Amino acid sequence: MKVHKIAVLAGDGIGKEVMPEGIRAVDAAAKRFNIGIEWTSFEWPSCDYYLKHGKMMPDDWKEQLDGYDALFFGAVGWPDTVPDHVSLWGSLLKFRRQFDQYINLRPVRLLPGVPCPLANKKPGDIDMMIVRENTEGEYSSVGGRMFEGTDREFVLQEAIFTRTGVDRVLKFAFELAQKRPKKHLTSATKSNGISISMPYWDERVDAMGVGYPEVRHDKYHIDILAARFVLSPERFDVVVASNLFGDILSDLGPACAGTIGIAPSANLNPERSFPSLFEPVHGSAPDIYGQNIANPIAMIWCGAMMLDFLGYTEAHDAMVAAVESCLVDGPRTPDMGGTASTTEVGVAIAATI
Amino acid sequence: MKVHKIAVLAGDGIGKEVMPEGIRAVDAAAKRFNIGIEWTSFEWPSCDYYLKHGKMMPDDWKEQLDGYDALFFGAVGWPDTVPDHVSLWGSLLKFRRQFDQYINLRPVRLLPGVPCPLANKKPGDIDMMIVRENTEGEYSSVGGRMFEGTDREFVLQEAIFTRTGVDRVLKFAFELAQKRPKKHLTSATKSNGISISMPYWDERVDAMGVGYPEVRHDKYHIDILAARFVLSPERFDVVVASNLFGDILSDLGPACAGTIGIAPSANLNPERSFPSLFEPVHGSAPDIYGQNIANPIAMIWCGAMMLDFLGYTEAHDAMVAAVESCLVDGPRTPDMGGTASTTEVGVAIAATI
Ligand SMILES: CC(C)[C@H](C(=O)O)[C@@H](O)C(=O)O
Ligand SMILES: CC(C)[C@H](C(=O)O)[C@@H](O)C(=O)O
Repeated sequence: MKVHKIAVLAGDGIGKEVMPEGIRAVDAAAKRFNIGIEWTSFEWPSCDYYLKHGKMMPDDWKEQLDGYDALFFGAVGWPDTVPDHVSLWGSLLKFRRQFDQYINLRPVRLLPGVPCPLANKKPGDIDMMIVRENTEGEYSSVGGRMFEGTDREFVLQEAIFTRTGVDRVLKFAFELAQKRPKKHLTSATKSNGISISMPYWDERVDAMGVGYPEVRHDKYHIDILAARFVLSPERFDVVVASNLFGDILSDLGPACAGTIGIAPSANLNPERSFPSLFEPVHGSAPDIYGQNIANPIAMIWCGAMMLDFLGYTEAHDAMVAAVESCLVDGPRTPDMGGTASTTEVGVAIAATI
Repeated sequence: MKVHKIAVLAGDGIGKEVMPEGIRAVDAAAKRFNIGIEWTSFEWPSCDYYLKHGKMMPDDWKEQLDGYDALFFGAVGWPDTVPDHVSLWGSLLKFRRQFDQYINLRPVRLLPGVPCPLANKKPGDIDMMIVRENTEGEYSSVGGRMFEGTDREFVLQEAIFTRTGVDRVLKFAFELAQKRPKKHLTSATKSNGISISMPYWDERVDAMGVGYPEVRHDKYHIDILAARFVLSPERFDVVVASNLFGDILSDLGPACAGTIGIAPSANLNPERSFPSLFEPVHGSAPDIYGQNIANPIAMIWCGAMMLDFLGYTEAHDAMVAAVESCLVDGPRTPDMGGTASTTEVGVAIAATI
């Protein structure tokens, strides 16, 4: 039995509370499907670590983590003590770039038992995969400020789109669409307003599409695409987007499905040259930390995505099925209208698995 | 009686069908409130004009339009014959920049009689004003491509934020918030991911806020803000955003309120050094053109905003009230579930006014 080495990075706030339940669920699946998992915990990245050491992670973080098969990540951020841009650029965004996790993948589904904020939608109506470029584009630190402090002051911010960067995310998205029943890919653009980068993106989408004749693909400007997520989300299957547009859509999608509190995300290096990272979308939630009421479902769903990426599709499916049955039958944490604790929900799901 | 000179730019597609109803409604209000209006029609900008002359507008468009008090604009675009980026950069985006229409203002309201795509919301729950920067930011034509056609190919796209450009839109938004009962302003940002322009934007928001102690202001990252528009739109009052974020939010907002087909927008030069432009959000809609079934409400609502900007608040209010009563009692065009024609709806609203 191959043993997978997983680095546990619980981080801050409720990251520390949901992590044990994520581990419990993965362990349950590992036992059932005979998968070898070896967990190693790290106290960084975290704002506690920052307060002690003046940085989010030790200088040799890359060497320390490089041998792991995956990073199981809770949440980072504690804005009362460390500003968000410091904690995030010092951890999550470093992982994405330096471990070349160029795919950010988020499943968005309307599930039974989850109240949907959209009227007249039923489970199954929303079922999409959002594929976000995760290393370049609009998230860049290139640019600067001139005439500082005067009336002529201005700021330049560069967005950078490379052929390598664009093509590899498009390829991943087309491959994914090809595997799904609807074989439909939607690309987010804004080429009618942003006149250099977005026409380039569109051009690469068309070029990539040629190689996937079975995949039907279309393009929507981001403004109308956001509107369509609300008005007719059933229209979408795989949605591919630049870093910024993907960021927006992958919060908007779960919001429309009512799953923003339970949504998982995977930051993938598909070539497996570096560890991939699996993290809940919800963040560290300082407002509810310490009460053991955080919903552990996103963390557990991340565990399922991690096992899928490691090659265990059945284990993934069993974990997602257990999550789904918990959403219908309970127990439920307060955010879902119940009174159960983080631990109770985690234990129940692990038992189902 | 002062006579206001209005340039009528009907444009393409349903722009040509809704324009007469916009004029009819404004004329009705002008009659009732004793306002002098003089209309002058132009055949440009339009794709028809482009097909004849190879450009969207004559070279002296600026001189021709400069003396008008306002531009009443239908819609531009006919993608079958002229690509959108050609028709739009050749008209609308030129007006915004050259007439320094630096405010794009869009009211978003959940109205009686309009089905809302969000569950459990009632009229009044959504009532916001989106204030979008309309001349700079992410919409820039600065940048370029290198290593073209090779694997090393990349594209740079600059976003440009000037102190002048940022401060004036913030000032407009704070002033507006101060006049509204809730006195609440929300700024869209993404300073946790976009590390030069967005922290600058945030800094200017704080600086401007100092001058408006009565206005409560907060900041949301665009990803979570988009999610919040779906989950709790009642939280927002005035929302101020950069060109791109404003573009997204001002389609998403009307989508959430069910009003995307009837939403108006105003492109304002508040100093009145140049004419301001009033246009429906819906565009030229080639798919329904020619049937006289387009909903004229957006165009009429634009007429109301135009009169408001010209100083006639009562006329604005009467026009909006007439629109509201038409939404409740009909007649309705097919998009609203009725069978009335564009003309019938226009005539009915004008009669109410
Ligand atoms: C057509 C397009 C260039 C335009 C924009 O993005 O500004 C439109 O979406 C709008 O909001 O007026
Ligand atoms: C925290 C922030 C930098 C991050 C992002 O924008 O990428 C987050 O919103 C996400 O989507 O993972």
